[in-house]
Amino acid sequence: MTTISIIGSGNMATAIGTRAVNHGHTVELLGRNATKARALADQIGNGTTVGTYGDVPKGEIVIVAVLYDGVVDAVSTYGDALAGKILVDISNPFNADASGLVTPTSAAHEMAAVAPDSAHVVKALNTIFGHVLAKGTPLDAFIAGDSAEAKATLGAFLDSLELRPLDAGGLQAAPLLEQAGLLLMGLARNGAGFELALGAQVH
Amino acid sequence: MTTISIIGSGNMATAIGTRAVNHGHTVELLGRNATKARALADQIGNGTTVGTYGDVPKGEIVIVAVLYDGVVDAVSTYGDALAGKILVDISNPFNADASGLVTPTSAAHEMAAVAPDSAHVVKALNTIFGHVLAKGTPLDAFIAGDSAEAKATLGAFLDSLELRPLDAGGLQAAPLLEQAGLLLMGLARNGAGFELALGAQVH
Repeated sequence: MTTISIIGSGNMATAIGTRAVNHGHTVELLGRNATKARALADQIGNGTTVGTYGDVPKGEIVIVAVLYDGVVDAVSTYGDALAGKILVDISNPFNADASGLVTPTSAAHEMAAVAPDSAHVVKALNTIFGHVLAKGTPLDAFIAGDSAEAKATLGAFLDSLELRPLDAGGLQAAPLLEQAGLLLMGLARNGAGFELALGAQVH
Repeated sequence: MTTISIIGSGNMATAIGTRAVNHGHTVELLGRNATKARALADQIGNGTTVGTYGDVPKGEIVIVAVLYDGVVDAVSTYGDALAGKILVDISNPFNADASGLVTPTSAAHEMAAVAPDSAHVVKALNTIFGHVLAKGTPLDAFIAGDSAEAKATLGAFLDSLELRPLDAGGLQAAPLLEQAGLLLMGLARNGAGFELALGAQVH
């Protein structure tokens, strides 16, 4: 059991936080909007706390659960407060109609560029819709990052949530996961519906 | 039951041809190397025939099961013989160490550029390793193409092979499937192993 910190108070923060407490973890919510964070903490319950936005998060794992547009700003604002942390980028840098990506590198690379040198950015959870994640059923979770240790720590946490971590490689694989987010959106829109998550089949 | 034509006589041609005859379809093999095509036809059996390379294929569905490097050449050589056909591009345009793609568009786009105007290019089956496909177990099959009719015809064929067709959208989604091929390779190499195929989970 561990304490994880989540920056954000939207759809994904709710799904991840709820899933975490349901598996015995403690959650700290860090929202720019303290009222919203407080309300979400009450909803998640099970000892969920609200931290001060910008202070050093309690958790070793910090999930940056804000929309892509806010990722760089959030991580920049925290700055050195994120030293040594495992920063999880779950964002999808989609354009307005979700037909393409708006970054020439990846959201994860952009996060890494503004994060402290001692932080470890891992891309994860961007190929699962929040409402699907919220159901609590077992799912595959692709992860990509340069630190094997950070991926092992995050992987163990995901595994505890009944999410099977599947390592896609170094942070250079983050764009592949972001393209996979687009693929998921395309499948959902073209008949498969939004109850879908990408995964891997083993036979 | 239908007749499908397969250009090529390698790993994927073997897997697709075998799976097709096992589900009652008839296969025509079209290989540049007639001896190799003949040997594969004998292996697949069940009435598999060998056509003359460059002649009009018997099948409405023509699976171009050659390596990426040979795709444009094969389709160019066939030229108008492919008029009206559903051309299935299954290739992965990987660079030498499979760390990136070598085309700025997609293999499917390159195929479409040299195919007759009346042909319909569909990207499919590039996120399943040949030896996994050969096992015959149910798998998801992502498809992308501009013709809804061609996708429906191909989808029905794939469905008959116990492959669940999942429409990723128009041909503009072909690059996403090629990136997904890279993702699959990354997952396989980073611990998941090569018995893996990408798929979708519905919950």
